[in-house]
Amino acid sequence: MGNLTFSISGKNANSTRLDIKARQFKFIADEDASFGGLDEGPNPLEYLLAGYASCLNVVAHLVAKERNINLRGLEITITGNDLNPAKVMGQPTADRTGFQSLDVQFEVDSDADQETLDSWITEVRGRCPVGDNLANPTPIKISVNQLIEAN
Amino acid sequence: MGNLTFSISGKNANSTRLDIKARQFKFIADEDASFGGLDEGPNPLEYLLAGYASCLNVVAHLVAKERNINLRGLEITITGNDLNPAKVMGQPTADRTGFQSLDVQFEVDSDADQETLDSWITEVRGRCPVGDNLANPTPIKISVNQLIEAN
Repeated sequence: MGNLTFSISGKNANSTRLDIKARQFKFIADEDASFGGLDEGPNPLEYLLAGYASCLNVVAHLVAKERNINLRGLEITITGNDLNPAKVMGQPTADRTGFQSLDVQFEVDSDADQETLDSWITEVRGRCPVGDNLANPTPIKISVNQLIEAN
Repeated sequence: MGNLTFSISGKNANSTRLDIKARQFKFIADEDASFGGLDEGPNPLEYLLAGYASCLNVVAHLVAKERNINLRGLEITITGNDLNPAKVMGQPTADRTGFQSLDVQFEVDSDADQETLDSWITEVRGRCPVGDNLANPTPIKISVNQLIEAN
């Protein structure tokens, strides 16, 4: 398998709502009233956390299979902590603008003992692409152009 | 406005599909056949990119309003580049496991000139929480416990 590339695109419906396409899938991101939106979909930070949870789910099952860990069920809760909205709002702050940390909680239905589960989670964590992009710096290039529409 | 915390939770439907709840919203993440899934929803990496695009949309409109930039419309495309799946698959590699870089392309319908747009995007980039969590290291704590169900 060669290197992988994924793309999504989004079109603004208003100043908070983005209508997103990822291949054949269409979904909506929005803000609630506290950020001036109509709450018509999960917010951007919730999608970020959902991306991480779903990545962990896939890798968790992959590594469990490799290690013959019996995994009957799995629930993942992720909390993004201490986002200081000052910088978003253009106010002075020494804080970063994103979450200051993330907490991930796995609840598993399995016969494995705690030591086995801890070792499994350590490997899952290290092999999860989304977790890597969150835990470690990722170079980002942004460009802006005038929209030229054919229609 | 005090510091903000957001949480999501997900329950595995099978080894690739996660059924996610974020407040009142329910949505599905899955993998396509190349990763053993049924392609019943966007994949984890697409949600990650969608979270970033939708965050940029909100901050872009906020900063445009502050700067009196007329923004009639906006399209954002984000591409995650060069994800080497070796590490996910448990094979040796010197590459990181996530995207090696991200490219963001804004297409805007606006009267503003290119210099104005470039300056605007620089500020948008620096104030977007999701972008901060991707561009800079974020501490992550993971715990695992046996699921104890009441029902």
